[in-house]
Amino acid sequence: MTNDMYNQSLPVFKQLLTSLSAILTKAEAFADEKKFDPKVLLDARLYPDMFPLSRQVQIAADFAKSVSARLAGIDVPAYEDNEQTFAELQARISKTLAFIESLTPEQFENSETREIILRPGTPKEKKLLGRHYLSNYGLPQFFFHVTTAYAILRHNGLEIGKGDFMGAY
Amino acid sequence: MTNDMYNQSLPVFKQLLTSLSAILTKAEAFADEKKFDPKVLLDARLYPDMFPLSRQVQIAADFAKSVSARLAGIDVPAYEDNEQTFAELQARISKTLAFIESLTPEQFENSETREIILRPGTPKEKKLLGRHYLSNYGLPQFFFHVTTAYAILRHNGLEIGKGDFMGAY
Repeated sequence: MTNDMYNQSLPVFKQLLTSLSAILTKAEAFADEKKFDPKVLLDARLYPDMFPLSRQVQIAADFAKSVSARLAGIDVPAYEDNEQTFAELQARISKTLAFIESLTPEQFENSETREIILRPGTPKEKKLLGRHYLSNYGLPQFFFHVTTAYAILRHNGLEIGKGDFMGAY
Repeated sequence: MTNDMYNQSLPVFKQLLTSLSAILTKAEAFADEKKFDPKVLLDARLYPDMFPLSRQVQIAADFAKSVSARLAGIDVPAYEDNEQTFAELQARISKTLAFIESLTPEQFENSETREIILRPGTPKEKKLLGRHYLSNYGLPQFFFHVTTAYAILRHNGLEIGKGDFMGAY
């Protein structure tokens, strides 16, 4: 069976996390080739109060995981944010991909009208229907962090292009 | 009536183009306050062979326009890329918003299975169904350029946060 909410979310997360993984592989090879500590890239940021590359990757993976889980109506798996190396970030992406690939279209049935509560119990609490949550919150957040990860690496001289960002579609 | 393809595209473009417009207003005010030529920001880029801010805004607006038009099954309006000032970029965004707001959900009927041809007649020609075109090509491209515009301004010291990027949802 097909489900629109499933098709609009899972394959997109999969496409972009896969391309992000390939970009990180190139970034690590770049550090190796130029003989600098890969940590320089992991800690790189576009401005002092912006998150560095490693955190951008963690947050992108987090949105893929949490948006998928919430639409599927299951608990969001908790992952520690303790990645310190490219290998660990790759493992984080792989773990996230394995999780989202474990979800089925059936779990997304009626998710378009499922109520999702953002920041529950806080003054900024906000309720959204599943379809708004995905289109107007989840996807923009996910793309924001994947693109920022790309931008940090591009700014640091990694030779990648938009095709690397887009991946296979 | 509602139409899923309409709901997944138009309100998202509207949300992010509106937030981009507000960010550009802050950017122009920042140049004014710090007494530097606003063109410095319009020409700013994250790496020599990346597009500058002005072009990122043009391309973001282009994707909003072209993806919407192609899904609606109408000709893509042609706009010149001749914007040289913040005011002109704001007019470009306004024109784009007016265009997408002129489209109706009825025009998006059956767009999920409409065949869209990317780069027709070139070696890179690619055919996608409307639903893949939107989720796996159009939205990623659009978000890529809106986020990069944000990243350029953040890198140049404009005090904005992710809430400015997200806009009203």
